[in-house]
Amino acid sequence: MIQNIRKVALLGMGTVGGGVYKIIEKQKNELIHKIGAELEISKVLVRNKGKYANLIAPEKLTDQWSDIIEDDSIEIVVEVMGGIEPAATYIKEALQKGKHVVTANKDLIAVQGHELLELAKTNHCDLLFEAAVAGGIPIIRPLNQCLAGNEITEVMGIINGTTNFILTKMSEEGMDFAEALQLATDLGYAEADPTADIEGHDAGRKLAILASLAFNSPVTFQNVYTEGISKISAKDIRYAHELGCEIKLLGIAKNTEDGIEVKVHPTMIPQSHPLAAVNDSYNAVFIHGDAVGDAMFYGRGAGELPTGSAVVGDILDVARNIQFHCTGRIGSSCYKNIPIKDIKETKSSYYVRMKLEDRAGTLAALAGVFGSNNVSISMLLQKTKDEKTADVVIVTYDVLEKQFMDSIIVISNMSMVKEISSIIRVYH
Amino acid sequence: MIQNIRKVALLGMGTVGGGVYKIIEKQKNELIHKIGAELEISKVLVRNKGKYANLIAPEKLTDQWSDIIEDDSIEIVVEVMGGIEPAATYIKEALQKGKHVVTANKDLIAVQGHELLELAKTNHCDLLFEAAVAGGIPIIRPLNQCLAGNEITEVMGIINGTTNFILTKMSEEGMDFAEALQLATDLGYAEADPTADIEGHDAGRKLAILASLAFNSPVTFQNVYTEGISKISAKDIRYAHELGCEIKLLGIAKNTEDGIEVKVHPTMIPQSHPLAAVNDSYNAVFIHGDAVGDAMFYGRGAGELPTGSAVVGDILDVARNIQFHCTGRIGSSCYKNIPIKDIKETKSSYYVRMKLEDRAGTLAALAGVFGSNNVSISMLLQKTKDEKTADVVIVTYDVLEKQFMDSIIVISNMSMVKEISSIIRVYH
Repeated sequence: MIQNIRKVALLGMGTVGGGVYKIIEKQKNELIHKIGAELEISKVLVRNKGKYANLIAPEKLTDQWSDIIEDDSIEIVVEVMGGIEPAATYIKEALQKGKHVVTANKDLIAVQGHELLELAKTNHCDLLFEAAVAGGIPIIRPLNQCLAGNEITEVMGIINGTTNFILTKMSEEGMDFAEALQLATDLGYAEADPTADIEGHDAGRKLAILASLAFNSPVTFQNVYTEGISKISAKDIRYAHELGCEIKLLGIAKNTEDGIEVKVHPTMIPQSHPLAAVNDSYNAVFIHGDAVGDAMFYGRGAGELPTGSAVVGDILDVARNIQFHCTGRIGSSCYKNIPIKDIKETKSSYYVRMKLEDRAGTLAALAGVFGSNNVSISMLLQKTKDEKTADVVIVTYDVLEKQFMDSIIVISNMSMVKEISSIIRVYH
Repeated sequence: MIQNIRKVALLGMGTVGGGVYKIIEKQKNELIHKIGAELEISKVLVRNKGKYANLIAPEKLTDQWSDIIEDDSIEIVVEVMGGIEPAATYIKEALQKGKHVVTANKDLIAVQGHELLELAKTNHCDLLFEAAVAGGIPIIRPLNQCLAGNEITEVMGIINGTTNFILTKMSEEGMDFAEALQLATDLGYAEADPTADIEGHDAGRKLAILASLAFNSPVTFQNVYTEGISKISAKDIRYAHELGCEIKLLGIAKNTEDGIEVKVHPTMIPQSHPLAAVNDSYNAVFIHGDAVGDAMFYGRGAGELPTGSAVVGDILDVARNIQFHCTGRIGSSCYKNIPIKDIKETKSSYYVRMKLEDRAGTLAALAGVFGSNNVSISMLLQKTKDEKTADVVIVTYDVLEKQFMDSIIVISNMSMVKEISSIIRVYH
């Protein structure tokens, strides 16, 4: 019956590569029906062939890229090594040879995605990367195809599982940041060097990709403002709850009249918002389009099998496209060039917690500084008080970041202000 | 620059047709970039041409199907009339003429979908119907493509907005069913004859389509067990809250070892489950796959623009496929023929509320009947008591529907049982 075999090379057998391998082996017979051809992993590029001798037939294992790039029977290259090099070089060489590429590499796509998509287009090749954003959650096809009739004005999400796990533990069990991070490390959610997660860089890369797709205009990681969660305290989370909010690390991208805003930062979000209920290591992407209204996509943003699921979905699509001679059908969707706004030019509402000297006139002086910078106060709460200082929480109305920060500089130099303890943006 | 025009005929200008028309008019210039061709609505089939004279150019309006089927320049037929006939005939004639079809018609697809997809395949045509399930929520491409590497074992959801609105009002504001239904009618959420929504038929049609896609095996509306929400009382919702649950009208499809289960019924679901937080007229579809784990898709399941968004997404995909000469690329995904289980052969946990005579031995007799039918009791709560009767709530462990119903027949005939007030299935 089946006369076709579509040959795939897998670059890397780490967590994601292992997941892809397992899924394809398990689903082998099903896939024949789904793509009308047999899918064969004919080469696997690894550093140490001995390590996989028990799992993979020796003739399939190689430590030489030349064994893959020079093998004309291989039509699909699946890059799951991660990192910029040699991944970037391998992908370029594959595309130049007319091989289709599936990658899970967000570091690379967030920086060189636009260039690589152009190269794919020139060579009539598919370059798919569903796994690079929000792991197993289907998001790229929904954006590029299902919602293509929409003008999307906002895409935001919880797109880093490690930090969401940490914030969930802080919120639900009252842990402080260090304790929750330790637990995340012990459970294998956080890496030995957790910087990329904790500081929002990982989320920033995914947001750059999402914003490009949603707004049809190039956005790279360098354009994204990032701020991490290491300064969030148990006290801020308690106060957030009192305000009816949760604190989440959100990636927020908006297409406004005067440009694109792209930022990752801890955010107070009302408990009634669907994203507020996304807990543990789950991810979710929330979209607002002019026709569809609000939509949300929820699931596992990382892990061997969820990420493998997204990679395999892409491989099957490429295989189907090859069968139907229509590779390159949906390539780069960036046909605009919208300017990107500096964080200082964006607007937000802010939560500020500070320690003030407890004497007459302090609040009036504070309100005066905010007022002269056009910062309107929506709420002022005087919290715990000891002999001489008071813990004060202020929530502002929406204001330009520049004006808010100008007022904070003045306030932090006032003699009655003992400490600006924390500043967190609030999403309405 | 643009040498191509893809011509579309719209059958129907009701709610959905109007939405499709508006979106395409608004996005005209964007769509050129997205599909590489201009999209033109060249004919609109309506019953009363006079009604649309102000909106649509007279040469585009027609009340004759022959004007469309005989026009060879029309490549895409968009059926948004609803109902079985003449929609079914028009779709068949269009496919036989090699025209591609996009439809939002769940009534038709839930019954004749498999046959129509075969016809599309024979004619190398696309037949897309994203809008037929969960309105604007992208779900068909995610299932058919993004998650194609998964064995999906469960798909369930809140797929009727009217009943979800009613249950939300009952849960949040303590309304009873009649009051909430009246509000839904006043707000235009419920139709003049709300039977199809209230009795779960609308949800059943969508579930049949979802199950077919998820399990790659034909499931039609006739296979779906349906039970509506008209018997749900404010008291049951109060008790559900006490048990940490919400009551939702769920469509539940499972692929089990001995066959497919497909059922729509009011369900108690733990408040911690993501579906429990889906409120008002929002819809959500929850999926479990062996690789991706749990995933959920949330958004507007109905309405002019959300449903229009899904239809337009499909039209753009067909247009792209025409540009790349690869229509018919993803057709029927039903390559299996899995038996479908009768509701009596399915398992569930049950909540039963009943009025009992308040005398010694009543509970023991009850427990005896359950026990002899292999029904294990997980919880028994004695609620309000008046002089002679007690309101008793029992929650069972998972049990075969057949065995549970056998025990209920015996119990309802016992002299000390004054009334079986309600029976609601419980989802763990």
